[in-house]
Amino acid sequence: MNPSSCNVAGKKVLIVYAHQEPRSFNASLKNVAVAELSKQGCMVTVSDLYAMDFEPRAIRKDIIGDLSNPEVFNYGVETYEAYKKKSLASDIIDEQKKVREADLVIFQFPLYWFSVPAILKGWMDRVLCQGFAFDIPEFFYNSGFLKDKLALLSVTTGGTAELYTKAGVSGDFRYFLWPLQHGTLHFCGFKVLAPQLSFAPEFVSEEERKGMVASWAQRLKTVWEEEPIPCMPSWYFGQ
Amino acid sequence: MNPSSCNVAGKKVLIVYAHQEPRSFNASLKNVAVAELSKQGCMVTVSDLYAMDFEPRAIRKDIIGDLSNPEVFNYGVETYEAYKKKSLASDIIDEQKKVREADLVIFQFPLYWFSVPAILKGWMDRVLCQGFAFDIPEFFYNSGFLKDKLALLSVTTGGTAELYTKAGVSGDFRYFLWPLQHGTLHFCGFKVLAPQLSFAPEFVSEEERKGMVASWAQRLKTVWEEEPIPCMPSWYFGQ
Repeated sequence: MNPSSCNVAGKKVLIVYAHQEPRSFNASLKNVAVAELSKQGCMVTVSDLYAMDFEPRAIRKDIIGDLSNPEVFNYGVETYEAYKKKSLASDIIDEQKKVREADLVIFQFPLYWFSVPAILKGWMDRVLCQGFAFDIPEFFYNSGFLKDKLALLSVTTGGTAELYTKAGVSGDFRYFLWPLQHGTLHFCGFKVLAPQLSFAPEFVSEEERKGMVASWAQRLKTVWEEEPIPCMPSWYFGQ
Repeated sequence: MNPSSCNVAGKKVLIVYAHQEPRSFNASLKNVAVAELSKQGCMVTVSDLYAMDFEPRAIRKDIIGDLSNPEVFNYGVETYEAYKKKSLASDIIDEQKKVREADLVIFQFPLYWFSVPAILKGWMDRVLCQGFAFDIPEFFYNSGFLKDKLALLSVTTGGTAELYTKAGVSGDFRYFLWPLQHGTLHFCGFKVLAPQLSFAPEFVSEEERKGMVASWAQRLKTVWEEEPIPCMPSWYFGQ
């Protein structure tokens, strides 16, 4: 550990990682993040969702024991009650513990249909439940329960950067970030750091791929000094 | 069947339905759609994802037999090859058959984190594969393989309509529709009909809920006469 990193030593980072293949480009980005952040003295935990065979479906089994209303199953209501009674399924409780302890949560995934892969959507649906991540009508957006934490999306795309511009057929990349960064992370209170976008790694040279991995590692050297992006529609849609 | 519906008799509709509870408001919307469209003489198929225990994860098991590259698993590449070789998993093939036969696909779901529940995201990730729904570099967006079909999102929300306005904390509802309607459905070629939004059914009276169900049934009476929404960012973000 070098002296300049003393102030970040002991910071806790959770990487929620959603790729099937340990030799993938996504794995390289995850691995370099683990290496760089560990070098800084951070404590890094990885939730490797495919390796864990993480359950994405929001189902009855997520509540241990009796339902508060056995007549009509309402997932949101039941998981809220189960959270308070500590009767959520153990895989949800495990993930909530990791989030609770983290100062920074990094999501590493390939873009599937302008969004996260279903296995990661399931992590969001099941882990970020009412009571844990937010509460209504008071504790959401800037008052969400995770408001003292940072979050960062590290996304790889199939399409090139040109497609994801205002004039490109897929529109500005900020458009697809809205439901994730605003509707999910900001809703839970997270301060959102700028996304790390690695465009079209499949269609560039090995050298360029290495460059993308290196620039991610480089960014992480000073990630703790970054200011969050503004939580406003104008960041996403301009004005 | 009444005479005015003769031109729609025989039309095929697939309802992809993602709610756990047969007595839910989402189920009521699904049921009334089945009833109304059947009354018109349409052939209606329902994919009840939770009842089917539909697999949301994009995994190796989706490809039967050998991989084209066993060294490094690339889900997109492998499912594209498997589609061409007819070696996709049978649950994917079954859903693709239903989509292929459908004139209209209706997605009925509660909004989870500004998007579809993971089980429905998994349906999109796994069923709408390259080769079946689109191909690169030629057959996507207006040239997507599903371009002769209509699609319609019927969404229930937790939040009220006021939250989902330009001035509301959750932003205009069109913002969260972008990845689904444009990034997914339009990408595959679907002509997208206006979404059916049922806001905050949990927080209104039983009478108002019945009104929402009735207005959905009413809309479906003339759904075949509707014009698709324009496939442009301006529909979503104004200008």
